[in-house]
Amino acid sequence: MKVNVVKNVLKANDIVANENRNIFNKAAVLALNIISSPGSGKTTLLEKTIPALEKQKSIVIVGDLATTRDADRVSDIALQAIQINTGMSCHLYANQISESLKKLKLDEADYVFIENVGNLVCPGEFDLGENLKVVLLSVPEGDDKVAKYPTIFRVADVVLLTKSDLLGILDFDIQRVKDDIAKLNANVTFIEISSKTSSGMEEWIAWLKEKRGKSVGQQARFVTEE
Amino acid sequence: MKVNVVKNVLKANDIVANENRNIFNKAAVLALNIISSPGSGKTTLLEKTIPALEKQKSIVIVGDLATTRDADRVSDIALQAIQINTGMSCHLYANQISESLKKLKLDEADYVFIENVGNLVCPGEFDLGENLKVVLLSVPEGDDKVAKYPTIFRVADVVLLTKSDLLGILDFDIQRVKDDIAKLNANVTFIEISSKTSSGMEEWIAWLKEKRGKSVGQQARFVTEE
Repeated sequence: MKVNVVKNVLKANDIVANENRNIFNKAAVLALNIISSPGSGKTTLLEKTIPALEKQKSIVIVGDLATTRDADRVSDIALQAIQINTGMSCHLYANQISESLKKLKLDEADYVFIENVGNLVCPGEFDLGENLKVVLLSVPEGDDKVAKYPTIFRVADVVLLTKSDLLGILDFDIQRVKDDIAKLNANVTFIEISSKTSSGMEEWIAWLKEKRGKSVGQQARFVTEE
Repeated sequence: MKVNVVKNVLKANDIVANENRNIFNKAAVLALNIISSPGSGKTTLLEKTIPALEKQKSIVIVGDLATTRDADRVSDIALQAIQINTGMSCHLYANQISESLKKLKLDEADYVFIENVGNLVCPGEFDLGENLKVVLLSVPEGDDKVAKYPTIFRVADVVLLTKSDLLGILDFDIQRVKDDIAKLNANVTFIEISSKTSSGMEEWIAWLKEKRGKSVGQQARFVTEE
């Protein structure tokens, strides 16, 4: 009984997620589901990423139990920023994204960054209709997290090792993390990045632009690049 | 329908949790549910705490999606250490604890430390039968986490600000955290602690001993303190 209900919830979520994905594709935006533990640097990364995309425009949808803090932080630099308060829920649902889409100027945007609730488990199970999943792991969290939270790293399209400026200060074995990821997911891109020093930002921005180009393909509206 | 099922799951969990609590109380152990984001230092704290309790004996029950790493880390210093692998679940359930209790020498122990899955949301909703909830927040996670994850801080009995040795290195406003906690929870104890430098350890150990004394009360077996 319980299992059936959980399956039904996931099935209903997947239906709405696919509708969202069709909307993203029609609007020629690349939608990214950004997932990490609390405090791994998701919002700080967006604060650096959005200006670095220059003429390409970003919409941000943020999920948090409470506050509008993270949407506020990016509201001046994003085309639009919307906060969803999840109350007791540890992840966003596709229908919350679907509701938000009605308020968004998707036709003017190139990227939709969906910053999920800080959680390394459930956001991996609930498809939001994104094109790609971005998983952040920060250096202070420790080099054992891939092995301990395998489900999320298995579905990641890119893993960003954030706060890489702390690599010299804290004990952290990068090779162990790379080896653990390789065992789970052969196709993932791994980027060391620091929002503080901007190390790795170029590689991340290039990855985004490449993925947007591929995903949007023929449907893409013309974007002027300087 | 969905809401009813969720309520039923919580209700069933609460019944088992209360049975667990009765077992803990009869055995005169203090049971603590240790909750934090991934990588906030739960296991490292236990590695320091268990020896510091000297003649008082600890049992550790660890929840993780995968691996036995954390139980392995404390197996030499704890009276017993058991790992529960939760698979896809982002928190422990009371019935998982109930199953574990059958294998444990509770009559020889003074404390049962239940290290929950790294997650700042759902572990607060699922009572395991513990006497007290210990919530860890690490300095690298940032000083905005109490406002953004209020549900867990509302039910905490003690908040440990871990990795306090990084306070001089990272931007972190302790007063903001204290103010945010005070708005949610007037009765919580707040301790700054570093497993690296041992700063705050004495206060934490004293808190544990005091709570065990109060909780166990007349039922307590005689424990020799040097």
